[in-house]
Amino acid sequence: MPNQIIAVDLGGTQIRTARYDLDLNLLQRENTLTLAHLGVQPTIERMKTFVRKVRPARRDEILGIGISSPGPLNPFTGVIVAPPNLHGWLDVPLRDIMETEFHVPVFIGNDANVAALAEAFKGAAQGCRHVVYITVSTGIGAGIICDGKLLLGREGLAAEFGHIPIVLENGTVSSVELEAAGPEIARRAKRAIQEGAKSKVLDIVNGDLNRIDAKAVGIAAAAGDQLAIAQLAYAGRIIGLGIVSILHLFNPEVVVIGGGVSKTGDLLFAPMRETARAHVMDEAYIEHLRIEQSALGDDVALVGAAALVATDGGNLDISELDQRF
Amino acid sequence: MPNQIIAVDLGGTQIRTARYDLDLNLLQRENTLTLAHLGVQPTIERMKTFVRKVRPARRDEILGIGISSPGPLNPFTGVIVAPPNLHGWLDVPLRDIMETEFHVPVFIGNDANVAALAEAFKGAAQGCRHVVYITVSTGIGAGIICDGKLLLGREGLAAEFGHIPIVLENGTVSSVELEAAGPEIARRAKRAIQEGAKSKVLDIVNGDLNRIDAKAVGIAAAAGDQLAIAQLAYAGRIIGLGIVSILHLFNPEVVVIGGGVSKTGDLLFAPMRETARAHVMDEAYIEHLRIEQSALGDDVALVGAAALVATDGGNLDISELDQRF
Repeated sequence: MPNQIIAVDLGGTQIRTARYDLDLNLLQRENTLTLAHLGVQPTIERMKTFVRKVRPARRDEILGIGISSPGPLNPFTGVIVAPPNLHGWLDVPLRDIMETEFHVPVFIGNDANVAALAEAFKGAAQGCRHVVYITVSTGIGAGIICDGKLLLGREGLAAEFGHIPIVLENGTVSSVELEAAGPEIARRAKRAIQEGAKSKVLDIVNGDLNRIDAKAVGIAAAAGDQLAIAQLAYAGRIIGLGIVSILHLFNPEVVVIGGGVSKTGDLLFAPMRETARAHVMDEAYIEHLRIEQSALGDDVALVGAAALVATDGGNLDISELDQRF
Repeated sequence: MPNQIIAVDLGGTQIRTARYDLDLNLLQRENTLTLAHLGVQPTIERMKTFVRKVRPARRDEILGIGISSPGPLNPFTGVIVAPPNLHGWLDVPLRDIMETEFHVPVFIGNDANVAALAEAFKGAAQGCRHVVYITVSTGIGAGIICDGKLLLGREGLAAEFGHIPIVLENGTVSSVELEAAGPEIARRAKRAIQEGAKSKVLDIVNGDLNRIDAKAVGIAAAAGDQLAIAQLAYAGRIIGLGIVSILHLFNPEVVVIGGGVSKTGDLLFAPMRETARAHVMDEAYIEHLRIEQSALGDDVALVGAAALVATDGGNLDISELDQRF
């Protein structure tokens, strides 16, 4: 009887593999560098090697291998389409490659989608059936659980929160991601400094404008720098406006925010919550709503990859799992 | 064995009742005026009378009574909260009232939600599992089917498409409904005419500015009136922008548009489709997408009320029905 799950977090920087029991308790973990610049094949070989490091003695102990990958990808065919941070990856049939190698079922999900499962099983959304997970990092993505089931959509392209359109005051149409993701936060800070604004951000990067990133802005903001605080507040308001759409469309019980930029905490969350509250049509949408930071942090994709296997690729209701095993 | 369903369409103007078989074929129908101004109790009594007119000979032939009502309402408790077009209705426990009267299961759904079920069973979305139904009328509402199941959300408040925020060029936050619903289309036309613009709309209402409504604007637009055409085009663009959010979040296979304003056809649909196409992040979202007019027209809520019973209040997957009966 299968009693273990293998999880893979394929990221732009690291490949992490782990072995979990069926309650998603961690049994073993390993990690290595992705080194995507060496090409697709070497990365896949490294992934296989690190799956071998965590696999149990016998194949029939493995329920399946779950892989969290940056999107776009097709969760139904297991093909990685063309992730911006996996340079050179183009229509890679990763599921078939891994099934051929390991002879067990393989499930592939985009990192934000599986993160929603992870938070529902082991994180800030435990016990919830209506869950929205939003990651604010280099990009802005989401995973949504509707009444216990992962939302995928017809082609597996659902839950792209970052691409909710935002009309700017000059009338042009932007998006949540184009206005509020980490690189944009950095770009705005950099531009303001170039235009003569004073900011501690410049000290943090030792005066090198090109080294300004969202992390530097976050550090300066935490130290009370007004310019940095304003950038996070703008991002928070934009994300908050996106959350208004999410509340009206999904009426969730919890919105979990993860990703690097979410670590700035209240500097992002306060304007986000305030905007959501200001524009929601009815108090009922937020009366019992929680908006919280991810509880799983950097492990969220790895736990999510395991949860993807437990839910049979997101096909099972999360509450069915007790009956499954 | 139950082999028939009773459907009620409780509207601001009319109450319609009907009897369907389990394949949602119409067996009998009746209708009466709502006369909401006479008070809640007389309306409920009239509803009961017209349910009696369509009920079968024996109670055990009835699978259940489905009621489509304007929202807001609670689909889990069957309480009608406070619909703007049912004046005087405030927290009416309609499900309990009807179950006490008829001793069969009663299900209550908001009109836009049940319309999505109707289109999936009998209308423009037959055979589809990822369906968005949008009604453009006095208000703008929606019903969404995610992978075969009606989306309700935690408190049954999901799918409020009309309340997606739209940022205006002056920076204020409006919503799809506040910009594009019928009354707003009429108000814009009226204001432009008051400000001196020439338009056939005025001829259609015999020069009486206060009689301008969305229907009059639609008639003038169909006759080539540029001012009227511009109002529908603006509404179409706003709705199209909302649809961009819908596509990115739900990745549906079909978006069905109903409601009175949808009858203006291409004058609304062309700018709507064009805006959706212009701002969608990836061709994949619209490559196989259909955006279509409702196939059921004025019957959509009645068929939907019956479909609500067939799906056990929206709890069953629409594809499970073949196995159910």
